[in-house]
Amino acid sequence: MQIATVKESLTKLPVGAEVHVRGWVRTFRSNRFIALNDGSTVANLQCVVNFEELPEDLLKRINTGACISVQGDLVSSQGQGQNVEIQVKKLEILGDSDADEYPLQPKKHSLEFLREIAHLRMRTATMSAVMRIRHNATFAIHKYFHDRGFYNLHTPIITGSDAEGAGEMFRVTTLDPINPPTTDDGKVDYKEDFFEKETNLTVSGQLEAELGAMGLSKVYTFGPTFRAENSNTSRHLAEFWMIEPEVAFADLDDNMDLSEDFLKFVIQYILDNCVEDLEILDKRLADEEKGKPQAERSEQGLIERLKFVVENNFVRLSYTEAIEILRNSKPNKKGKFKYKIEGWGADLQSEHERFLVEKHFKSPVILFDYPANIKAFYMRLNEDEKTVRAMDVLFPGIGEIVGGSQREERYDVLKGKMEKMGIAEEDLWWYLDTRKFGTCVHSGFGLGFERLVQFVTGMGNIRDVIPFPRTPGRAEF
Amino acid sequence: MQIATVKESLTKLPVGAEVHVRGWVRTFRSNRFIALNDGSTVANLQCVVNFEELPEDLLKRINTGACISVQGDLVSSQGQGQNVEIQVKKLEILGDSDADEYPLQPKKHSLEFLREIAHLRMRTATMSAVMRIRHNATFAIHKYFHDRGFYNLHTPIITGSDAEGAGEMFRVTTLDPINPPTTDDGKVDYKEDFFEKETNLTVSGQLEAELGAMGLSKVYTFGPTFRAENSNTSRHLAEFWMIEPEVAFADLDDNMDLSEDFLKFVIQYILDNCVEDLEILDKRLADEEKGKPQAERSEQGLIERLKFVVENNFVRLSYTEAIEILRNSKPNKKGKFKYKIEGWGADLQSEHERFLVEKHFKSPVILFDYPANIKAFYMRLNEDEKTVRAMDVLFPGIGEIVGGSQREERYDVLKGKMEKMGIAEEDLWWYLDTRKFGTCVHSGFGLGFERLVQFVTGMGNIRDVIPFPRTPGRAEF
Repeated sequence: MQIATVKESLTKLPVGAEVHVRGWVRTFRSNRFIALNDGSTVANLQCVVNFEELPEDLLKRINTGACISVQGDLVSSQGQGQNVEIQVKKLEILGDSDADEYPLQPKKHSLEFLREIAHLRMRTATMSAVMRIRHNATFAIHKYFHDRGFYNLHTPIITGSDAEGAGEMFRVTTLDPINPPTTDDGKVDYKEDFFEKETNLTVSGQLEAELGAMGLSKVYTFGPTFRAENSNTSRHLAEFWMIEPEVAFADLDDNMDLSEDFLKFVIQYILDNCVEDLEILDKRLADEEKGKPQAERSEQGLIERLKFVVENNFVRLSYTEAIEILRNSKPNKKGKFKYKIEGWGADLQSEHERFLVEKHFKSPVILFDYPANIKAFYMRLNEDEKTVRAMDVLFPGIGEIVGGSQREERYDVLKGKMEKMGIAEEDLWWYLDTRKFGTCVHSGFGLGFERLVQFVTGMGNIRDVIPFPRTPGRAEF
Repeated sequence: MQIATVKESLTKLPVGAEVHVRGWVRTFRSNRFIALNDGSTVANLQCVVNFEELPEDLLKRINTGACISVQGDLVSSQGQGQNVEIQVKKLEILGDSDADEYPLQPKKHSLEFLREIAHLRMRTATMSAVMRIRHNATFAIHKYFHDRGFYNLHTPIITGSDAEGAGEMFRVTTLDPINPPTTDDGKVDYKEDFFEKETNLTVSGQLEAELGAMGLSKVYTFGPTFRAENSNTSRHLAEFWMIEPEVAFADLDDNMDLSEDFLKFVIQYILDNCVEDLEILDKRLADEEKGKPQAERSEQGLIERLKFVVENNFVRLSYTEAIEILRNSKPNKKGKFKYKIEGWGADLQSEHERFLVEKHFKSPVILFDYPANIKAFYMRLNEDEKTVRAMDVLFPGIGEIVGGSQREERYDVLKGKMEKMGIAEEDLWWYLDTRKFGTCVHSGFGLGFERLVQFVTGMGNIRDVIPFPRTPGRAEF
């Protein structure tokens, strides 16, 4: 007898095969039909038991959430929604589940409730679909870069430098929390700390990725990054994963090409490899949309939206052009934006980005050449000396999904900008060194992985696309 | 004209092709031969310049470390060590490198010195080879699990629970470092901290991976883990990467099979895909071995050792059998072990593991069924009630490379052990829940990624197999 997963039983094995399947009971109805799931696919395997032949006390233990082992014959199914089912010959309870105590009942639970039981929510259809897609996106990302000669670089998580001032940082320490050693002037003496200096959790691996690119040419990071910001929104996590490619000899145009090609590849991979999971999530989203007022409903379903992105060119326009469009737009004139666009130099808010993408162009948009003074020190200054070679990729429903730039490769310009922005040379001597010894044009970008998973799964809250979300006040599990 | 990498020029393009290559100068000799490298391969591309046609001031700038752009024709090479070279028609300096200042001279540098300039060491043959192999191992690991129906699970980095007591932890905090808020009894009031509780950097994703396996069946983690131990050795890092597969319905035998098959796959992948890099590192190791006294030299070269591992079965034996062998061994009797093996119950040290692997069996060894009291609370108790279903995979030169176990799936036994070991139920209620609702036999293991990279590259110091090592007192770059 062959041990098989639910997926193998449903899609690979011939009718007539004898199989042995293990999994968790989703439902048990009419004392006859068990819907069995093992996470290998979103579909359940129907196991038909002959209740007359089973002892009553065993039947009573076939509860939602119980772990069971089933042996029997794979037969054609008369029921709707499946081609095959198992005619059960032997059934064993591996792990009981008390029907009164088990938090996951065979009914629709709210996503908020499921977050409270994140240790069990991967047993639900929605969350297991999200996790399988998250995995496939992870694999697609590694495959994309690997096939194109990039090297995965594990940049440090604990860092002694505030890389790009991208946000508030978490301190990492082993000092006595209540009586830390102090210096003569009453400050904490970090020389006594584990790393003999103040250290934090990284906000980005970019600067170290640049060091890699200046020797290996093409590298990418895929690791956790952190923001200690008190943002309790559906778009922010304190701990999230980022992908940061960095490419020597690439300018901003190459960088835009790479980001577009990369995003399309990953989305196409999901379309090709996660059909059943996408269908469930497409339906979920459609149900959710029905509850919204007509005006707020999305015009496209989930799968439709993914196909649209892979089949169409992203619109590329400069920040300056975008400001013109926004300034003259109806919502701006009618005071519908929370932040009115008065003119050139304004930082774009999520509402502006979404207007461009969702209303004006109805397409992903790459904005480039932003004002220098709203962007980071390492971005390459344009000839006009007021804009930098920055780019943001904006997606419908998400806003900014990618942020990148061509890096300032000129030693003097970079040093000048660091001075102006108050970044100490002794903190980044190693970064400056790459401009001193064999510098070259290079570019890269950062992709917030959870934003991408949100986009491909249609999940509205970022806390529902990572197994165990970390947010202010929440570090459970 | 085609833009090409050094690797493409050397292996893919036909003689006669016009190419445009960018990279960094490794050496420039006789005012004529540039060895150009761009990190795409360990080999350099020889670029032949006609010095009579180049201005003198340009020639002077072709220094080691300079970044240059070269255009010319690919021709058959008369020189040794390469099939093709470029006859340069146009040369441009992209980034200068002052010969007096550049720390990487065209000579052999010590690994210790290179660690001090980790921001530049990826430009050396040895370190770039290590990094390319590290990348390929990363990819092979994802591929192995993906192809076998495992899902990559991103378990949390910041954790509120001291998972397995695996070691000292780093505290993660945003509290004022000098005047933290305190409770009435003078302790730090972690309710005021970012997560409203005390949090640390994870030492293992295993417990959360188990939550995943209890719904998705087969999962694996691949992420950073941390130890705040003051170990300044060639085997320890404060920040390192771990791979932790976790499999529902798998017992310890399945777990041993998985670990052996997995390790062989990854090593075979490196043998198949990193030939040139392995050859360089094989030679490096052989040179290093020559400097050692005869008795300490390894009997096998690097590549030979890798082939040996994939071609032979790992020896499997119980802890009890191992103790017998060790107790009766020559070094034990002659007092050569630092820690003498007196009898059953002793914790094995690195010297004992290496004796079994390198001297006794001359083969990787999987030890299993360890005494319960030297292993973690979550390992499944055997019927003898004094051993647990633990296993360690031991490799030559490395010692323990994998540690795993069948997990205690029985609620009462697990709860009893937690009580006995003083682990608070309220800290791990979610872990206990998986034993309460649909529990099942399951197993998993942890692989220290850097130990594996050490093994496949032959690098003796773990600081030389991760781009930017974190160790006590060191968090530079």
